[in-house]
Amino acid sequence: MGRTFTELPARSKCSRCRGRARIGLPSHNARFCPDCYLLFFSTAVQRALKRLSVPREEPLLVAVSGGKDSLTAWDILNELGYATHGLHINLGIGDFSEASRERVDAFARARGLSWSEYSLQREFGYSLPEINRRFQGKICSVCGRLKRQHLNRLAVRENYGNLVTGHNLDDEAGRLLGNLVGNRQEYVRKQSPYLPSPHPYIPAKLKPLYRLDISEIRIYCELRGIEPAEIKCPLSRGATSHYFKEALDMLEGRMPGTKRQFLFAYINTRQGETGQEADFGECCFCGHPAYADVCGVCSLKGQMEAKN
Amino acid sequence: MGRTFTELPARSKCSRCRGRARIGLPSHNARFCPDCYLLFFSTAVQRALKRLSVPREEPLLVAVSGGKDSLTAWDILNELGYATHGLHINLGIGDFSEASRERVDAFARARGLSWSEYSLQREFGYSLPEINRRFQGKICSVCGRLKRQHLNRLAVRENYGNLVTGHNLDDEAGRLLGNLVGNRQEYVRKQSPYLPSPHPYIPAKLKPLYRLDISEIRIYCELRGIEPAEIKCPLSRGATSHYFKEALDMLEGRMPGTKRQFLFAYINTRQGETGQEADFGECCFCGHPAYADVCGVCSLKGQMEAKN
Repeated sequence: MGRTFTELPARSKCSRCRGRARIGLPSHNARFCPDCYLLFFSTAVQRALKRLSVPREEPLLVAVSGGKDSLTAWDILNELGYATHGLHINLGIGDFSEASRERVDAFARARGLSWSEYSLQREFGYSLPEINRRFQGKICSVCGRLKRQHLNRLAVRENYGNLVTGHNLDDEAGRLLGNLVGNRQEYVRKQSPYLPSPHPYIPAKLKPLYRLDISEIRIYCELRGIEPAEIKCPLSRGATSHYFKEALDMLEGRMPGTKRQFLFAYINTRQGETGQEADFGECCFCGHPAYADVCGVCSLKGQMEAKN
Repeated sequence: MGRTFTELPARSKCSRCRGRARIGLPSHNARFCPDCYLLFFSTAVQRALKRLSVPREEPLLVAVSGGKDSLTAWDILNELGYATHGLHINLGIGDFSEASRERVDAFARARGLSWSEYSLQREFGYSLPEINRRFQGKICSVCGRLKRQHLNRLAVRENYGNLVTGHNLDDEAGRLLGNLVGNRQEYVRKQSPYLPSPHPYIPAKLKPLYRLDISEIRIYCELRGIEPAEIKCPLSRGATSHYFKEALDMLEGRMPGTKRQFLFAYINTRQGETGQEADFGECCFCGHPAYADVCGVCSLKGQMEAKN
């Protein structure tokens, strides 16, 4: 991974300790030395966790893809003293999945952390390239749905009530903008960095990085020696979520602080109102919670089999 | 004004009459000959007016700055057979105001239309450059407030119950996005292409161009031989509204139709709910409707006098 922050002039002073600053954060109007940057970062995560009301003794299952966000979430939670366990789903996308798996393994080994690996092929019956042949054009949304559903199920199987994901400020603000522009008010209302468990088969969802943006996470990775998988998924083809992130980056460039104020304003006004939907029944095939008679996984599996 | 649309290949057929198409509209997936383009444009305005429920016999006062939007609104309403009268406020900004005034005059003369001119200097006591010397940095918002307030008052003085403005799709969608990103829900709820009169001193507001974007209005001007003032206001300095329009243009470029769907979705869900606030008293200086004890005009005038 290349340098993610530019060196500041030698006389720049850290906004906190007045030592030599190396990292400038224009959106916070601050510059930090490496130690104070790590403190800033960990304070933002602790603030998030406090809002998410997670007790320190609660064990956390961390969904880890091998990318920068999920490895950062795992690293900082571990640093903050939480008991964590990694959960990796191997999607079977050739070199991409191999590199991702390898990054998770190296990261966990170096820190003595435990993790479980599951294969989508074994769990669902098909690897992502096989699914892609059937669902070309909308593979990103199908993959997202499959991962979400399998993470729920595997968390229950592994006996964890809290599932952590690495969603960052850009992910959350971009998703919010997309839902607002599409006038999907029910999704706007439901979007939250903390979703309590609505059913014994669905864990609570936590996003401890929701206050930190991509560039802040990159800096954290560099300072902490985290080496995430940098290879791009070969099946991805410009998900629309990228466009909304791009639009927000443009606004942020013109009016620094916009992205943060935007997301936080919505989260703050809806504090306590949100939750995962609770009005579901059971899938008539697998018995898992489902909005319709058949759950998303069984319905996709049916489509895969019908088209074979 | 330069060419605003590219010539289509000679074999392009008009989507409506199959004659030679000259104008391509990607966001509508259509191409038109000039006659059918004018029909398309006038249909969009009629659709807007139908939604705004304006009876054909109602006389309309059109706020005309001399720019492309207001002249287009005036032209098409006249074409559609409405009784119209122009209302122009001379802001006193040197060459800019002179050129604007001259464009209104030339337009009205060519079509035999009546209009009234008012001078901000005479009505308010100060021209915009004088106000700018006091309110540098926020002159665009001060000017907007002054124009809004004076248009209300002059409409009443001229005895019109309906005030037309040239706000187009880009203006309305950009403003909506800005209000959503700033989480100003009360403004989101109030935004509408039609605001009924809430008080005898405040006219109903109509935006008959809200379904048409900037490029569509430019094409209309070219086809109809409208020559708007093209000179940029010398006091304007990047109002934030431009950034939101830019963000929407970016999204529109990636996902054609986004801007339109976005605005219409919000307008459609709030149909009938909106209105100008009705809970105001009277300004203790001028007696005009005001939210506080002193109206916006008198409060600005006070600030101008205090600083003299």
